[in-house]
Amino acid sequence: MPSISKKGIQMPESPIRKLVPYAEIAYKQGKTVYHLNIGQPDIKTPEVALEAVTAHDLKIISYTRSEGSEKYRTKIANYYSKHNIHVKHDDIIVTTGGSEALLFAFGSIMDIDDEVIIPEPFYANYNGFSTASGVKIVPVISKIEDNFALPPIEEFEKLITPKTKAILICNPGNPTGYLYSKEEIKKLAAIVKKHDLFLIADEVYREFAYDGIEHYSILQEEGINDNTIVIDSVSKRYSMCGARIGCLVSRNKELIKTVLKFAQARLSPPTLAQIASEAALDTPQSYFDEVKEEYVKRRNTLIEGLQKIEGVKVAKPKGAFYCIVELPIKNSDHFAQWLLESFDVDGETIMVAPAAGFYSTPGVGLNQIRIAYVLNEESLLKAIHILEEALKVYQY
Amino acid sequence: MPSISKKGIQMPESPIRKLVPYAEIAYKQGKTVYHLNIGQPDIKTPEVALEAVTAHDLKIISYTRSEGSEKYRTKIANYYSKHNIHVKHDDIIVTTGGSEALLFAFGSIMDIDDEVIIPEPFYANYNGFSTASGVKIVPVISKIEDNFALPPIEEFEKLITPKTKAILICNPGNPTGYLYSKEEIKKLAAIVKKHDLFLIADEVYREFAYDGIEHYSILQEEGINDNTIVIDSVSKRYSMCGARIGCLVSRNKELIKTVLKFAQARLSPPTLAQIASEAALDTPQSYFDEVKEEYVKRRNTLIEGLQKIEGVKVAKPKGAFYCIVELPIKNSDHFAQWLLESFDVDGETIMVAPAAGFYSTPGVGLNQIRIAYVLNEESLLKAIHILEEALKVYQY
Repeated sequence: MPSISKKGIQMPESPIRKLVPYAEIAYKQGKTVYHLNIGQPDIKTPEVALEAVTAHDLKIISYTRSEGSEKYRTKIANYYSKHNIHVKHDDIIVTTGGSEALLFAFGSIMDIDDEVIIPEPFYANYNGFSTASGVKIVPVISKIEDNFALPPIEEFEKLITPKTKAILICNPGNPTGYLYSKEEIKKLAAIVKKHDLFLIADEVYREFAYDGIEHYSILQEEGINDNTIVIDSVSKRYSMCGARIGCLVSRNKELIKTVLKFAQARLSPPTLAQIASEAALDTPQSYFDEVKEEYVKRRNTLIEGLQKIEGVKVAKPKGAFYCIVELPIKNSDHFAQWLLESFDVDGETIMVAPAAGFYSTPGVGLNQIRIAYVLNEESLLKAIHILEEALKVYQY
Repeated sequence: MPSISKKGIQMPESPIRKLVPYAEIAYKQGKTVYHLNIGQPDIKTPEVALEAVTAHDLKIISYTRSEGSEKYRTKIANYYSKHNIHVKHDDIIVTTGGSEALLFAFGSIMDIDDEVIIPEPFYANYNGFSTASGVKIVPVISKIEDNFALPPIEEFEKLITPKTKAILICNPGNPTGYLYSKEEIKKLAAIVKKHDLFLIADEVYREFAYDGIEHYSILQEEGINDNTIVIDSVSKRYSMCGARIGCLVSRNKELIKTVLKFAQARLSPPTLAQIASEAALDTPQSYFDEVKEEYVKRRNTLIEGLQKIEGVKVAKPKGAFYCIVELPIKNSDHFAQWLLESFDVDGETIMVAPAAGFYSTPGVGLNQIRIAYVLNEESLLKAIHILEEALKVYQY
């Protein structure tokens, strides 16, 4: 039998996906499962996007330009200017989700065994993209005690080698909910400038910044135009994760030219989803205001509830819709399975994401879970209660 | 300034895309340009697919399963069974176009510097996918004199090294239009079995088989279930290139498990396009009959016309909608530019794809072009006339 590649063997299984068989067991047992495990919001996609799809008048679903249409990219540039980010349409390449944008970025700036420094815990799929690209993630550990703030810049400096090509942050962060301050971005800007590195920021949660704090993009920082690469996506912004439309933004012309070659090889981003995404840019501000208000309520409910549970530690997130929760347990992989298989409160249980998959350092995060507060308050309250009761009886 | 990766520098520019600036010059000169250069058919997408999009009732454009929904994959399996290909839904992973299916296949079976043998000329983007994946294409040359038939199997055997992991064919072929016979597939089956290699077949043009010849899939060949990987796509079949929906099909469980991990990292294929693609499976047979009839007419018109031009050599394609044409010129890159910039017949000219980009052997294919017969007969006749007149005056 022909053999699978080493890379294929090393590709990580999604930490969430691993639990699916146990969720299926829970369903078979007739349990209701509250899904705190995935970043699929229950928020409705803006009408204007859904209606644009309904109203399509295509006779042929044909290719678009590999980089996305000039019209759509111009509209994206206008969107950015409203967020004080000044870029032109030709600084933007439309991609098939933020995922593809990151793969193109990795391919354009890193060769085999090159290194990217990422504050840990980080979005689990960064592990998959780095394995697929043959590059190495060098984690710099951020701590729940510090709310997962940027680790001291000396910690980054210590990790830089001739193979280091980039620092990657997710801002606001999945899974931490941490929102980097302007000062932290300035520190990162200085270090990438000093060492001629790229600074990649996954800013797909840009709008989800709470408590009156404004998101500060790496593209707002002056003097590092050649270093900065933003990964973006319509997925969370407009609750249209399934569109699979994102973009890569950079003022570095050489980089954009290189990314375009990767984009050309795969021909074009999806046409129908671009129709929806272009229309979504006309979403009224009231939509975002309502969504933000809803998430703030959910966050407050969740954090307050969690803080009341004995032995539970949680950092208060200031952005996105996730938080990392430390529990008085030894192994959250086992705990998450047990919740599905062996526990319920009146026929109801919860599905959470074990946090070890968000770390690349072995053994770290085993007593943590990630909770996505993508459910309404009533469900969240029930979920917190279930967690509390579960911790009372969980024996392992 | 931080530097681009070696891989990024090596990524080939699309041979077609390179001509776009010259096409823009032609437009500025007010010329009409007949596009023989790209595989974007003018055939309408089936109504049933377009209507399914219009009728969507989504409130949230959410993720689908990473491997595509079971319902859609079951329908795809039914489609295959009508083509005497017997696979189950769990032998299928839905991908973002055939492009992603091939990238997943390369990632799952090849590590850095591993080799894949491909009959040349081949689909230009295979170069991009191999560069992006860090693997090496080893070409085996097929000849216009043989209609681009499978090269003698000894030629493959000579090229096999410990690094060889797969043989890749495109059947029917882009850019050759060659349709492999059952006997040729059997020869390939024997060699991959003997050397424990994968046999990857890009069968996206399956339906475009002419002259009463039936397409023979590698999945119909017995005894090589663990070796075969089919790359498929809705792009050409239903003239919905912009949907970006394809799939990877294999009965090798270990392979499918590995491909799934790549699929999970990028979350899911596009949701709206899956709605269109699932509906497209209900396209009536009459659609395909009409499309095939149309392409056969176009092919006959094109080939007859080309054969009448002095010094022009063309293989008669039996499938897909491309042909490689040998011209009495030295450099088709220059010729293609010249056609756009400096030539016209009554204000009209043609855009063709220089063939060198379809070869990985340097210097080969320089006197060839690829023509996609994706235009109606009237346009094709005009295009042939323009080519004939151009060759009379082209001096380089």
